[in-house]
Amino acid sequence: MRPVVLGAIGAGRIGKLHAENILKLPGARLKIIADPFMDDNWARSWGLSTALDTEAVFSDDEIEAVLIFSPSPLHAEQIIAAARAGKHIFCEKPIALDPHRIKQALKAVAEEGVKLQVGFNRRFDPDFRRIKQAVDSGEIGRIYLIKITARDPAPPPMEYVKTSGGMFLDMTIHDFDMVRYLSGSEVEEVYAAGTVLVDPAIGEAGDIDTAITTMKLKNGALAVIDNSRQAVYGYDQRIEVFGSKGSIAAGNRTPTQTILTTTDGVVADKPLAFFLERYQESFRAEMKEFIRAVREDREMPVSGQDGLVSILIGIAANESLKKGEPVRIAD
Amino acid sequence: MRPVVLGAIGAGRIGKLHAENILKLPGARLKIIADPFMDDNWARSWGLSTALDTEAVFSDDEIEAVLIFSPSPLHAEQIIAAARAGKHIFCEKPIALDPHRIKQALKAVAEEGVKLQVGFNRRFDPDFRRIKQAVDSGEIGRIYLIKITARDPAPPPMEYVKTSGGMFLDMTIHDFDMVRYLSGSEVEEVYAAGTVLVDPAIGEAGDIDTAITTMKLKNGALAVIDNSRQAVYGYDQRIEVFGSKGSIAAGNRTPTQTILTTTDGVVADKPLAFFLERYQESFRAEMKEFIRAVREDREMPVSGQDGLVSILIGIAANESLKKGEPVRIAD
Amino acid sequence: MRPVVLGAIGAGRIGKLHAENILKLPGARLKIIADPFMDDNWARSWGLSTALDTEAVFSDDEIEAVLIFSPSPLHAEQIIAAARAGKHIFCEKPIALDPHRIKQALKAVAEEGVKLQVGFNRRFDPDFRRIKQAVDSGEIGRIYLIKITARDPAPPPMEYVKTSGGMFLDMTIHDFDMVRYLSGSEVEEVYAAGTVLVDPAIGEAGDIDTAITTMKLKNGALAVIDNSRQAVYGYDQRIEVFGSKGSIAAGNRTPTQTILTTTDGVVADKPLAFFLERYQESFRAEMKEFIRAVREDREMPVSGQDGLVSILIGIAANESLKKGEPVRIAD
Amino acid sequence: MRPVVLGAIGAGRIGKLHAENILKLPGARLKIIADPFMDDNWARSWGLSTALDTEAVFSDDEIEAVLIFSPSPLHAEQIIAAARAGKHIFCEKPIALDPHRIKQALKAVAEEGVKLQVGFNRRFDPDFRRIKQAVDSGEIGRIYLIKITARDPAPPPMEYVKTSGGMFLDMTIHDFDMVRYLSGSEVEEVYAAGTVLVDPAIGEAGDIDTAITTMKLKNGALAVIDNSRQAVYGYDQRIEVFGSKGSIAAGNRTPTQTILTTTDGVVADKPLAFFLERYQESFRAEMKEFIRAVREDREMPVSGQDGLVSILIGIAANESLKKGEPVRIAD
Repeated sequence: MRPVVLGAIGAGRIGKLHAENILKLPGARLKIIADPFMDDNWARSWGLSTALDTEAVFSDDEIEAVLIFSPSPLHAEQIIAAARAGKHIFCEKPIALDPHRIKQALKAVAEEGVKLQVGFNRRFDPDFRRIKQAVDSGEIGRIYLIKITARDPAPPPMEYVKTSGGMFLDMTIHDFDMVRYLSGSEVEEVYAAGTVLVDPAIGEAGDIDTAITTMKLKNGALAVIDNSRQAVYGYDQRIEVFGSKGSIAAGNRTPTQTILTTTDGVVADKPLAFFLERYQESFRAEMKEFIRAVREDREMPVSGQDGLVSILIGIAANESLKKGEPVRIAD
Repeated sequence: MRPVVLGAIGAGRIGKLHAENILKLPGARLKIIADPFMDDNWARSWGLSTALDTEAVFSDDEIEAVLIFSPSPLHAEQIIAAARAGKHIFCEKPIALDPHRIKQALKAVAEEGVKLQVGFNRRFDPDFRRIKQAVDSGEIGRIYLIKITARDPAPPPMEYVKTSGGMFLDMTIHDFDMVRYLSGSEVEEVYAAGTVLVDPAIGEAGDIDTAITTMKLKNGALAVIDNSRQAVYGYDQRIEVFGSKGSIAAGNRTPTQTILTTTDGVVADKPLAFFLERYQESFRAEMKEFIRAVREDREMPVSGQDGLVSILIGIAANESLKKGEPVRIAD
Repeated sequence: MRPVVLGAIGAGRIGKLHAENILKLPGARLKIIADPFMDDNWARSWGLSTALDTEAVFSDDEIEAVLIFSPSPLHAEQIIAAARAGKHIFCEKPIALDPHRIKQALKAVAEEGVKLQVGFNRRFDPDFRRIKQAVDSGEIGRIYLIKITARDPAPPPMEYVKTSGGMFLDMTIHDFDMVRYLSGSEVEEVYAAGTVLVDPAIGEAGDIDTAITTMKLKNGALAVIDNSRQAVYGYDQRIEVFGSKGSIAAGNRTPTQTILTTTDGVVADKPLAFFLERYQESFRAEMKEFIRAVREDREMPVSGQDGLVSILIGIAANESLKKGEPVRIAD
Repeated sequence: MRPVVLGAIGAGRIGKLHAENILKLPGARLKIIADPFMDDNWARSWGLSTALDTEAVFSDDEIEAVLIFSPSPLHAEQIIAAARAGKHIFCEKPIALDPHRIKQALKAVAEEGVKLQVGFNRRFDPDFRRIKQAVDSGEIGRIYLIKITARDPAPPPMEYVKTSGGMFLDMTIHDFDMVRYLSGSEVEEVYAAGTVLVDPAIGEAGDIDTAITTMKLKNGALAVIDNSRQAVYGYDQRIEVFGSKGSIAAGNRTPTQTILTTTDGVVADKPLAFFLERYQESFRAEMKEFIRAVREDREMPVSGQDGLVSILIGIAANESLKKGEPVRIAD
């Protein structure tokens, strides 16, 4: 089994996570990781070759696939550059906030005949895969309702809020993708009720921090997502799919399964702290499947189209919020 | 402690339940129960005096309070008759489906200076009371979101569907009341996404069987209810209130706390079958508090206004469903 | 359906509980309750006829069955008196601490041909009945192990400890009966490891407060009971039966099913406070079955022999504790 | 940070597991792995250097520490050889079944001044560490009872049963170590009730398959372990420690946190299949701590003495089983 040769762009928090995961995957070799602000100590401790310039990745003929972990505004142009260099691409979400820009990137990918996987890592979470399996196998029958709870432990820094495209495009986008993934259906219409309850500064920055988003799906089912920028008890990530034969629900994962019983009550652990802990396995699994898809020339498990459509739903949610009425998703 | 003397109207399923509960309550005496189609065997086995005509109740000077368990279309006129006879009133929900009719009934109650309690029994459920207590004591801080799941085990008979006023006025009305009760706030606007997934005959009768209803509350919080006319696994009744300091959630109650672990999995009991089992304690408690309020001349724990407002929200939900957009609640 | 006419002896805590339950049971009439220290206010509020002398019960020809709720040292003689009066008997556990005394009582019962039910109420608990059903139906296959946890919220008063016969005869006796009930097998040998950890005063009174008791059953299975006189978090009552096809376990019952999630953790309710709350349903159910057995002339669900054998196991456990080695149960 | 250079002996199931874990640990280098029956394909896929002869490990001057993953009967002599070669040692449990042999090995370790860690991996399990922390921090007060459930999914092959030293030395030894680890106390006396219920062939081979083992600890607390060679539903590993201020309990870990609710019940996942899945994290953590202890010249987290004492308790349990009475642990 020849190893797939990879080059990575971006060695921030998420880039480091992916790079370390790849080192533990048999069948892949991370040849180089490029970042203009490289953390050399980190790279040395893992024995990684580094570059400051992304060109080192695009121009290396041995590299088959490029992993884009850079800041979001750079994603589209780097996808285009990687495609033009004839390399397969893994790109963290979002491809871009502007659908036109996403379409440009997807056009380059199509023209060059390379593969692109978008980083909707939650599709690879064991719990959510189990839900998907229950749906696909008919265990819960025809889908009636999908319910997603996604609450962050704390709001992001204010500078991030200002450039993130808003809660729907930054945070709920994962949930929009999950609705599509679990239902196997497109979203037809979205209604977003959102407000500012956590921190007035978020409202002053033009964003919201609390929302309930309802969706009508093309297959007739309904879906609802509740989001909050701050659950003081930790990262709250739950999904329930309810159908004609029953329901399947994923609860939160916790550091331990212990229960402490004292005069204060019967106390279980709080949820795992944040996405790095909670979705640890999913990050490993999405990379594993990307590498396998490259090696075995398979279809990518999350497509560029998936990256585009979630942005379109998010944009519709923003419009619904503004208008105060339901909005249909653009085709 | 003198016993409060009561007269009941209606000895159907819910009337029997209440009557049997009263027999086990010290401090109350059910002097007579009237029903044109009296089940005499049942009445004899509990030693109850019966009448076929409701006049026997209204005209009995010893009776202080009238309990109305008759079919819904009779509620308003019986409230008026009881009020005119100078008796305090417990009335099962709804008072009426037509707000004008409700207002007529409430006017009579006000004019005669009698007390009226409406049968929103779920307010007396121990689990939901615990949630209310957590809200009121500040344990979960300021409310951000209220989430209610209410699914019936099976749709009602088709004749019932046709006259019930629709799912929102028949079933969701309890949840609307719960949102008001738990939040201590009025509902400002409602958006209902509803559809027919369980049984096409429900759709043909002009009703829906699956819905997600979103509400904006006057205190700034959001609320969402998901309803289904059929959860094949039983009566699914859950509530979560999420706030600035945490969350409190009530799960389903089950016949036993046993867990069976075999090669098939780790299996817990299904929820209690339906409302008579699930809300058994709440039916007892609401009657106990009604009797106490009569004896001690206290304010009723659920007012006629509560009965009116929930109908107004239900009517707004029906309108939202029809128009496909959010609707403000009439003042 | 003619009501069964009952007379009760003893109106202490447990007598009151049973008496109130009987009032709510159709098909039974509690004609009189006798206690030399009668709480007249309580009796009046429930409309009960009272007597100070037990003779009023034994000599009343209308009374078919006598309910013995008196202090334990009186049980045996009152069983004998009731049997001689030709009345069926319900007697709280234990019949006596001395097996000879128990045998005398059972002899009188046999000679007079009356029925006797002993108050092992836990056999009527819905959770434990579900376990019994799983055993009997073969759901968990052949029994390998029975595990019982029984911990009180706080030690009894010191005067009680001194006369109770020790923890095994007072507290564990319920668990011994449960092992026999669930397994359908007799106990062959018992090994008790016990110690004083909760309160030295208990040790000074010659008793223990913490124990692990292992049993070998005639059917080849093993059983283990862990007891404590003090679980600060409440009344801890759990049972697990493990067999060739799986396991069934009953957890604690709680006041509500709510979960409070804050920065302190994910907190469920503590167990119900003590036996009156925890076994409320079982007290009602055992009386219901007693009345039915009298009316329909059926076999009693808990026999005098059951009352005797549990005492024999308790005595063996005391001997094992003293000798520090396993002891066989006397035949 | 210089990497610690390691040599491994044994590339069977557990050797492979550890070797792969080491590859993912920064700060360690597995220079060579020796096994007379080396799986070359496996070694190649992970890029490992191999040897058929253990001498290649002992004689390599660069290797600081030897990891012994060979069959148990070879452990003691390999510990001695490694000690004589001046290398630190990690050895899978048991060191040997014969206490004299263990003492010989420990003597060599002491004489050569090398470090030895014994593979009681469960001490490194996050759930059990949380229990230990609750004990040490005083959260549950003084320990009253320790309860351990340890059930295998299926009996080992018959040839293994015949040479394993019996269930207590093979399987319960982990639980004996856990009692000592959690309590911080030595075991004074042990009473074992064991029997053959799973498979008569196990009995014919002179072993048991079902047991309840009670211990008296030097700190005054009691402990009980229930073991079975076959829980058809999977690997059942639970621990509860109950003390003066409360209780802490670790339940089973499961593949997912999902709950499937259908007409069949409310179904959670079965426990993780077996020890490789269940204790995955603990295997990684024990190796990490071994490497750290070597590098930083710290005390080993599990000592040779720990390896010896657990065998002594197991031998006493075997004796108790044979004699049918409690046995004191040899000093």
